[in-house]
Amino acid sequence: MHSEDETSEAIVIDQAVDAAMQEIRLRNRLQMSERFRRVRRQSLVIAEPLSAEDCCVQSMPDASPVKWHLAHTSWFFETFILERFEPNFHAWHPAYRVLFNSYYEGVGEKFPRPQRGLLTRPALDEVLAYRKDIDQRMLRLIEASKGWRDGEMDVGGFDTLLELGLQHEQQHQELMLTDIKHLLSINPLKPAYQAPTPALRDSAALATPLEWRSFEAGIVQVGHDEDGFCFDNELPLHRQFVEAFACASRLVSNLEYLQFIEAGGYDDPALWLSEGWEWRRQLNLYQPLYWQQDEAGNWLEFTEYGLLPLESHRAALHLSYYEADAYARWAGARLLTEAEWEHAACEPRVEGIEFFGVAWQWTSSSYAPYPGFSAPQGAVGEYNGKFMVNQYVLRGSSIATPLNHARLSYRNFFPAAARWQFSGIRLAKSL
Amino acid sequence: MHSEDETSEAIVIDQAVDAAMQEIRLRNRLQMSERFRRVRRQSLVIAEPLSAEDCCVQSMPDASPVKWHLAHTSWFFETFILERFEPNFHAWHPAYRVLFNSYYEGVGEKFPRPQRGLLTRPALDEVLAYRKDIDQRMLRLIEASKGWRDGEMDVGGFDTLLELGLQHEQQHQELMLTDIKHLLSINPLKPAYQAPTPALRDSAALATPLEWRSFEAGIVQVGHDEDGFCFDNELPLHRQFVEAFACASRLVSNLEYLQFIEAGGYDDPALWLSEGWEWRRQLNLYQPLYWQQDEAGNWLEFTEYGLLPLESHRAALHLSYYEADAYARWAGARLLTEAEWEHAACEPRVEGIEFFGVAWQWTSSSYAPYPGFSAPQGAVGEYNGKFMVNQYVLRGSSIATPLNHARLSYRNFFPAAARWQFSGIRLAKSL
Amino acid sequence: MHSEDETSEAIVIDQAVDAAMQEIRLRNRLQMSERFRRVRRQSLVIAEPLSAEDCCVQSMPDASPVKWHLAHTSWFFETFILERFEPNFHAWHPAYRVLFNSYYEGVGEKFPRPQRGLLTRPALDEVLAYRKDIDQRMLRLIEASKGWRDGEMDVGGFDTLLELGLQHEQQHQELMLTDIKHLLSINPLKPAYQAPTPALRDSAALATPLEWRSFEAGIVQVGHDEDGFCFDNELPLHRQFVEAFACASRLVSNLEYLQFIEAGGYDDPALWLSEGWEWRRQLNLYQPLYWQQDEAGNWLEFTEYGLLPLESHRAALHLSYYEADAYARWAGARLLTEAEWEHAACEPRVEGIEFFGVAWQWTSSSYAPYPGFSAPQGAVGEYNGKFMVNQYVLRGSSIATPLNHARLSYRNFFPAAARWQFSGIRLAKSL
Amino acid sequence: MHSEDETSEAIVIDQAVDAAMQEIRLRNRLQMSERFRRVRRQSLVIAEPLSAEDCCVQSMPDASPVKWHLAHTSWFFETFILERFEPNFHAWHPAYRVLFNSYYEGVGEKFPRPQRGLLTRPALDEVLAYRKDIDQRMLRLIEASKGWRDGEMDVGGFDTLLELGLQHEQQHQELMLTDIKHLLSINPLKPAYQAPTPALRDSAALATPLEWRSFEAGIVQVGHDEDGFCFDNELPLHRQFVEAFACASRLVSNLEYLQFIEAGGYDDPALWLSEGWEWRRQLNLYQPLYWQQDEAGNWLEFTEYGLLPLESHRAALHLSYYEADAYARWAGARLLTEAEWEHAACEPRVEGIEFFGVAWQWTSSSYAPYPGFSAPQGAVGEYNGKFMVNQYVLRGSSIATPLNHARLSYRNFFPAAARWQFSGIRLAKSL
Repeated sequence: MHSEDETSEAIVIDQAVDAAMQEIRLRNRLQMSERFRRVRRQSLVIAEPLSAEDCCVQSMPDASPVKWHLAHTSWFFETFILERFEPNFHAWHPAYRVLFNSYYEGVGEKFPRPQRGLLTRPALDEVLAYRKDIDQRMLRLIEASKGWRDGEMDVGGFDTLLELGLQHEQQHQELMLTDIKHLLSINPLKPAYQAPTPALRDSAALATPLEWRSFEAGIVQVGHDEDGFCFDNELPLHRQFVEAFACASRLVSNLEYLQFIEAGGYDDPALWLSEGWEWRRQLNLYQPLYWQQDEAGNWLEFTEYGLLPLESHRAALHLSYYEADAYARWAGARLLTEAEWEHAACEPRVEGIEFFGVAWQWTSSSYAPYPGFSAPQGAVGEYNGKFMVNQYVLRGSSIATPLNHARLSYRNFFPAAARWQFSGIRLAKSL
Repeated sequence: MHSEDETSEAIVIDQAVDAAMQEIRLRNRLQMSERFRRVRRQSLVIAEPLSAEDCCVQSMPDASPVKWHLAHTSWFFETFILERFEPNFHAWHPAYRVLFNSYYEGVGEKFPRPQRGLLTRPALDEVLAYRKDIDQRMLRLIEASKGWRDGEMDVGGFDTLLELGLQHEQQHQELMLTDIKHLLSINPLKPAYQAPTPALRDSAALATPLEWRSFEAGIVQVGHDEDGFCFDNELPLHRQFVEAFACASRLVSNLEYLQFIEAGGYDDPALWLSEGWEWRRQLNLYQPLYWQQDEAGNWLEFTEYGLLPLESHRAALHLSYYEADAYARWAGARLLTEAEWEHAACEPRVEGIEFFGVAWQWTSSSYAPYPGFSAPQGAVGEYNGKFMVNQYVLRGSSIATPLNHARLSYRNFFPAAARWQFSGIRLAKSL
Repeated sequence: MHSEDETSEAIVIDQAVDAAMQEIRLRNRLQMSERFRRVRRQSLVIAEPLSAEDCCVQSMPDASPVKWHLAHTSWFFETFILERFEPNFHAWHPAYRVLFNSYYEGVGEKFPRPQRGLLTRPALDEVLAYRKDIDQRMLRLIEASKGWRDGEMDVGGFDTLLELGLQHEQQHQELMLTDIKHLLSINPLKPAYQAPTPALRDSAALATPLEWRSFEAGIVQVGHDEDGFCFDNELPLHRQFVEAFACASRLVSNLEYLQFIEAGGYDDPALWLSEGWEWRRQLNLYQPLYWQQDEAGNWLEFTEYGLLPLESHRAALHLSYYEADAYARWAGARLLTEAEWEHAACEPRVEGIEFFGVAWQWTSSSYAPYPGFSAPQGAVGEYNGKFMVNQYVLRGSSIATPLNHARLSYRNFFPAAARWQFSGIRLAKSL
Repeated sequence: MHSEDETSEAIVIDQAVDAAMQEIRLRNRLQMSERFRRVRRQSLVIAEPLSAEDCCVQSMPDASPVKWHLAHTSWFFETFILERFEPNFHAWHPAYRVLFNSYYEGVGEKFPRPQRGLLTRPALDEVLAYRKDIDQRMLRLIEASKGWRDGEMDVGGFDTLLELGLQHEQQHQELMLTDIKHLLSINPLKPAYQAPTPALRDSAALATPLEWRSFEAGIVQVGHDEDGFCFDNELPLHRQFVEAFACASRLVSNLEYLQFIEAGGYDDPALWLSEGWEWRRQLNLYQPLYWQQDEAGNWLEFTEYGLLPLESHRAALHLSYYEADAYARWAGARLLTEAEWEHAACEPRVEGIEFFGVAWQWTSSSYAPYPGFSAPQGAVGEYNGKFMVNQYVLRGSSIATPLNHARLSYRNFFPAAARWQFSGIRLAKSL
């Protein structure tokens, strides 16, 4: 039993704790507004160098127009947050619910994906006005959320959805860059996305000899286990057994990939998966997506800065899974599995500089649910789970990935034939 | 033998004639500049209500972006006239030769037609600058041509090519209207090309009972026989024998076409050509291109003014050859042949108001060369002749045809499945 | 007013005429049975060198298995004659009505055309049993028809349908030969349809220099105007005006077509219709359907006798309309129109040997109804009329055409890309 | 140092061992001939109920004609064994090397897979003669191999290749059954492969309530570790970590699958993988491959015995991966992984009757190489490895699998859309 003193002391302490918590909550809230502003602004920064025409067009069904990305990311906030939390919610425009729904069957009708580039209306200016309105309403809502249950986090799932919306926007920021690169690449004028810069410098790391880091067999943890956000597909944290393997110290460089080409790699079916060989043969492919040879035989690469001479010591990019796999076989190696990649990338002795920020790395792991995976209820549950078939996981992050959007357990995924992402190769070997 | 007087008199007369001719030539030249300016300006008038985004996008491989039309028509003058006649010719941009070549194999490479909508660069502004430059240079050349051999017409074929360039531009003016209509129609916002006007009024002519005008069997003249311009495919003037027939006094109206629909016309294979039935079935079509029914069952039509209630007494438009043929069979009639159309349309007793200016009229004549037809030498010879297979001739002109661009012998042609032109039906019967 | 004598004389004459007519009718009837037997037997003669496997398979959607032809031609008699005229008609097998319906929407369901080759059941033997049954019942019916209204012709349209059935069977006899040739040609064993014969001899006619026969302008008669059978599409007889033209004295030979190839004809877009050029380019074609070059560069042709050295002075065969048109342009000539062909082929001074019996000759005439054409009532009316779009007429007949199945007004028709028929080239010129 | 006695004793023992070994070798050899005869004979037994026509036709590109299977399995022995081991080897027919090469790039050219059904020649009889010749030569070679190095096993890899050839033949025996079932199913006559039997009896096991067997988390062994043959893709034996899970005691029955259909399973996108939903929607699928409803609404299933009423308590068969996955989601469960399946199937307490012999069971594991996998050198190395992308593993065996061809580590694999195999569903749950 407590004495009165103890009791009053406890009360004082409780009050102090409450006050501290209150302040943390406030700071979180303030940061949230600021974070929202920053992420949203970044999408506009990416669109800045582009004309309304550039933003409107769709170069292939896999890609989307920049304007569509700008609208869809706003639609995400409107549909999954404002509609649920905003008092007296009204849709900005009734048609947008359909026009900018990407793939959520639970939300209703969708405008056909291959026709997104036909939407010359709403004009870019109207989409920017839509963004502005959504931003203002979201910021008012974030502000108002400070008062909900005294600033408590995630009332009704608000903060979780807000964070999801921002992560979603960041994913689309990378897609905006890959999609616009693809569009510009088709144009015979070979326009630069960014003003020409001094010639790209080769990366020192990629000029060093490739080394092999060995890892012993054992049980490893796979999945998200830190604080902070992750997508549902990174859960649950679980165990996998990994046999002994070695992991390359760096990515495959342009120079190395060129050697594969010059050794006849694109002509030898023995190096390719059967399906990959058919893909290559039918499309008559002999080099990565953005490489070409001029009449004198010099190799050029279409980049964000326009068409430039191929740099030897940069990472080979824009490769399909089929190409990554064929290169690995030619090099007497193989690709990493997801579990191997995650295990290797978290080892402190592996400096890791290239695990992130250069190129997404194809793994040999088909995109599948982790044991015990379950998607959230409702339309938001369609975010990841329904794509878990016939796609391959890429790990790491690329030069186009927004800062703070990469993490060890992040699972990117694309079909084996996809080449327009910043996808490269890290080799592995069984020991 | 002439006396001296006669001789000097003749000289005086000759001089007078020369002076008169000289004046006519000068007037022709002046008119030419003015005509050039007007036709070229009209293309900009058509593009006026459109944004840069609207002008950039291509809604289907058969259509082209408005910006592409604006550039290609300039390319035509640059490639076929300036390059040949301009002293010190220099290309405005070397890449444009390929980018804006439509189908002239004789000129060289072409940018792939289905990708025209991917050309966000050059921007609309750049294309307008290109047009302006071509206009200035063309006008200088027209001015200069006054001095060629003392103003003589068609030195080196200049005037013929100039006229061809202007007729070509007028053809593209109609295509700009049909292509933009198609693009806007796909947009769920159903945007109007032109500001909404007071409701379209029904046409009095189409409310009158359809009558049959009879024509006796006999030899008729087909082809161009007047002064003034014609395309090569309208030549040579030749004879055809036409058996006795009757021609409908007016086009088929929306009301009549609706009766065909309501009588189950789209469900009865006995009414259709076999190929047309497969086309209808595979595309699951049950009405003209721009018709739709709202939930209450009311018929609406997408027009230049947006989506409007269907008007009964306007011409049924945007029909394929298959639909025109099926309708005619249902109505116990048939389509006219080219020769019949041309014969009927030139009869003074047929008031003719609807032969021109409302809807192109499908004929049952496959697009084929007239006996003795020969295409001009060089790349310009590809203008018409190489398309003479698997297309059907449409006669007359439509509400989208530029003024002064219609004539009795004009042969428009499209594949049997084409519906995005202003194509309608005039019935006929054998007697 | 007649005297009694005159009357009784008239009666005597009438009786004599009646007796004569009666005899003619009987003879017609007897001939009919015999004709029916002969035509039906000929289909089996064609199938004779083939195995059940050969008869079952379909090499492309345009072709049909020989077994299917054998069944479908029997189906035709069963459906259009026995069902209507046989007392106590019963279907041989209820499923056959659908299985062997080619394209008659009026009869009901059809088994999908591209899957005809999947029908391993009924077996060939069962189809032969079906044929035998139909033959017996038809012959009984023909016998019985002698008693209908005292042997009067065409009671209820019986004789007309019977003749149509036999003509139909003859059409399929040619198709059996072209379809089996195509099937065998795909087999790398290059099997011969017929036992190898002494090397084909060149045709003397095709070794002679090509000459031009001139025809004056004027009105010509087109269509069927003789006694005897014709298809509905050959009617009505009508007038066409033909401008002066010249017609080649013989078909184009292999030697001449080879010169076109060697002159780069397949590489020069200026020679081709635009659509033909795309067709050639996409399929990467450089020679007629059944030509190939061995490693030493010698030309070979797949024939009914297997793969043989190309004979110079035989008719160039198995050409598409696009190829025929391109060759003609290269040769400074053109193809004949239907009316020109019919006019030229009926001239007594043109010996005509090659108008028939060697190769069907592409005309530049799109397959269209003659003025006043009307299809018969009912499903039989689907025989010809519904195909009158996007096909081109071929005139004459080929080495594969049954004897007695060719005539001046006969209109064969195929799409412009079709090559597996015995189709060749006769040149023309406008004068 | 050994005494003489010991030495001589040792010699005696050695001799006894040698004699015993020699006898074992001889018995192995004798068994080999007998085994070869039996396996080869079984292929003919499967073809026995079929006509030459049935054996010739290919119903879809994924399937092959029975005749082709009969020839290809002989080609395998000829190409990979006779060519290498037979003294004075001569090819049976030079063209067969190409005609019956399935997918071995290392062997050279291949006849295009989708055209296998066009090979009416060689005739079935010729293929049977080819089989007979290969059999005789193989048996002579097996006989001769007894003398190689005194009957030593696998001289030059002979026995390994022989066993591979027989296993290969057994795989094709199952494919013959699935391919012929598909072909017959398309025929509207719905022919039975086997003579009608008394109605199929429901399986007692499938009428019992489904139970869940639990398995604890832990490291499990995956891959082949027993004596006897396995394919390269079952190696190496390796470890995987499996989280706790439950495995269904039996397969999903027709009755249960019907409940899924009747609950609207084919109409609810929330149950389907996104790609599966598109597949279902585009093909307009509403039931398993061989199910249909008669006009009265009764469910029928096309079987080897023809079209029969659907049996409630038989395993649901002929399902795609997409359907298996959607069913599992609807049932609140999921599919097993490969490792889980192999672990569950080898537990003694699981009676296991249905793990084998009823239906191949889709796993959620993409077909991928085991860690340390390496394919054999040469063309034989193409057998399995090059297909390790975009396919899903099926485990167990089916009613169509040859006796002695099933084993715990066997990995069957097909694309997610494949339905014509005997593929069914076993459910799982994470614990």
